Amino acid sequence: MNNTDINITEVCPRDGFQSINEFIPTEEKINLINKIIDCGFKQIEVSSFVHPNAIPQLKDADEVLKHIKRCDQVKLRALVPNVRGLERAISAGVDKVKLMLSASDSHSISNANCTTIEALQKFETLVELADFNKMKVSGSISVAFGCPFEGDIPLKRHIMICEYYQSLGINEISLADTTGMANPVKTRQIVRELKHRFPDITFSLHLHNTRGMAFANAYAGWLEGIVDFDSSIAGIGGCPYAPGASGNISSEDLIHGFEEMGLNTGISLDKVIGVARDLQGKFTEYSDSFLLKAGKCSDLKAAPIKQQKIVK
Amino acid sequence: MNNTDINITEVCPRDGFQSINEFIPTEEKINLINKIIDCGFKQIEVSSFVHPNAIPQLKDADEVLKHIKRCDQVKLRALVPNVRGLERAISAGVDKVKLMLSASDSHSISNANCTTIEALQKFETLVELADFNKMKVSGSISVAFGCPFEGDIPLKRHIMICEYYQSLGINEISLADTTGMANPVKTRQIVRELKHRFPDITFSLHLHNTRGMAFANAYAGWLEGIVDFDSSIAGIGGCPYAPGASGNISSEDLIHGFEEMGLNTGISLDKVIGVARDLQGKFTEYSDSFLLKAGKCSDLKAAPIKQQKIVK
Repeated sequence: MNNTDINITEVCPRDGFQSINEFIPTEEKINLINKIIDCGFKQIEVSSFVHPNAIPQLKDADEVLKHIKRCDQVKLRALVPNVRGLERAISAGVDKVKLMLSASDSHSISNANCTTIEALQKFETLVELADFNKMKVSGSISVAFGCPFEGDIPLKRHIMICEYYQSLGINEISLADTTGMANPVKTRQIVRELKHRFPDITFSLHLHNTRGMAFANAYAGWLEGIVDFDSSIAGIGGCPYAPGASGNISSEDLIHGFEEMGLNTGISLDKVIGVARDLQGKFTEYSDSFLLKAGKCSDLKAAPIKQQKIVK
Repeated sequence: MNNTDINITEVCPRDGFQSINEFIPTEEKINLINKIIDCGFKQIEVSSFVHPNAIPQLKDADEVLKHIKRCDQVKLRALVPNVRGLERAISAGVDKVKLMLSASDSHSISNANCTTIEALQKFETLVELADFNKMKVSGSISVAFGCPFEGDIPLKRHIMICEYYQSLGINEISLADTTGMANPVKTRQIVRELKHRFPDITFSLHLHNTRGMAFANAYAGWLEGIVDFDSSIAGIGGCPYAPGASGNISSEDLIHGFEEMGLNTGISLDKVIGVARDLQGKFTEYSDSFLLKAGKCSDLKAAPIKQQKIVK
């Protein structure tokens, strides 16, 4: 992963595809992921190895992984909720698996019917199995910047979770603003504290634009030294607690914003916009993408000519 | 204007109403503005005294001003493009007039068929007349963060314009990101330079969310000491260069964001959301408001209860 200032992980094939009600045919998924690979992302969250009843949209994860193209420059990450999922991910040959839990017990119960601590305890077996198979493991913390049931998350919860992850040997943690409750001040406070307390952990941000602050939070995180971000092409991947509200920050908006700030993402924005248009036209009407509507800042228009007043 | 950390000027009655094709009946305008006054804004941009042929949506500016309620805590600002407009604003009894020009010659020609310097020269007569009538005057710079025809604006243009404004005795200047081309790095650079060079001028930001960065730019401006911002209820007031794209940052999103950051705006967010719903339902389908879709961060949901596994 390098020669870039900002590393963006494309999560559309997981977070986005699972949010589209209609099942995207396996072949279409493979085509789209191959196009995403061509965009220049260094890492793609390709799928989630969950039970097909839980997320039928991703039931073909194994098949998809079998047929997408592989190249050394693009790491493939997949979500695994349990031992069965991990086994599938290992046999599918992903580069890394991601574990997911919630910062609050309420959200954890709502999502996984267990408390945060219970989720962490379950991870022990998974990490053991992953280690045995030399599979890289990353962790994540959902609702890290606010829980729709409990509101603010006390910092001691983040610390407890990070300590537990660290004790399992995990040194990469994604802080997710699952329901868009972060703001730049809160983002900086949490990121600063965690980076200070866990200097050996690489933190990344997974931001939702639910309340219009996603890019502000990305900027705030970057000011605190975060250079790893998740995003989803066309902004696909919603917020289940507020139907119709914006979800994931769109990759094209995030890439464009950072590039406008003078930072290099190593990604072809034009190719990303192309995939976004494909997705929007074919599989969903919904898109929370500013760039698809407004175009890039660099798309300049022809200058007008001053009209001479006609003297009669 | 005070006891607030952030001062927001509501521009919907000018920037928003003029963007709605259908003419909003005078009485409805008066009702809406009276409701906006009740929200707690310290300043409202109530109208524009332009020629009725240019902006027919605001042809009733004089009538509106005659009938809205007045209270000392709420300052009324109006846009004036020329001497006739200024005379109307004076006789309508607004508290302040705003002059408008563009940072680039191309945008100035496209909007006003004159160069930036020609626009400034025309302001001399206006300021003289305003001074004679003890009318306060503020200035503004459109496309200050990027021109859709020319791209980046060289800093010497901002400096030249601010010097000219200052020579006319104007000490309040709004920097407008008319087509949403700002980013947080650029915003901070321009604001820092101008605040450093013109310590006696109060700069404010007028931000558009065309490319999803409005709140990030507001945050960036605030980091550089800006506390005065424009916004428009329901985000009404578009970007003529990209039909369908987002325009003004919505007041509810801006207020909510700053309040979440722990800052006091002195405005009732619930009342603003009420006016936004009125506006959206009655006069326009369009709204670029995140809060109208997602609700406030503080709108918490009932926590779920952990399901016991049934042992058979």
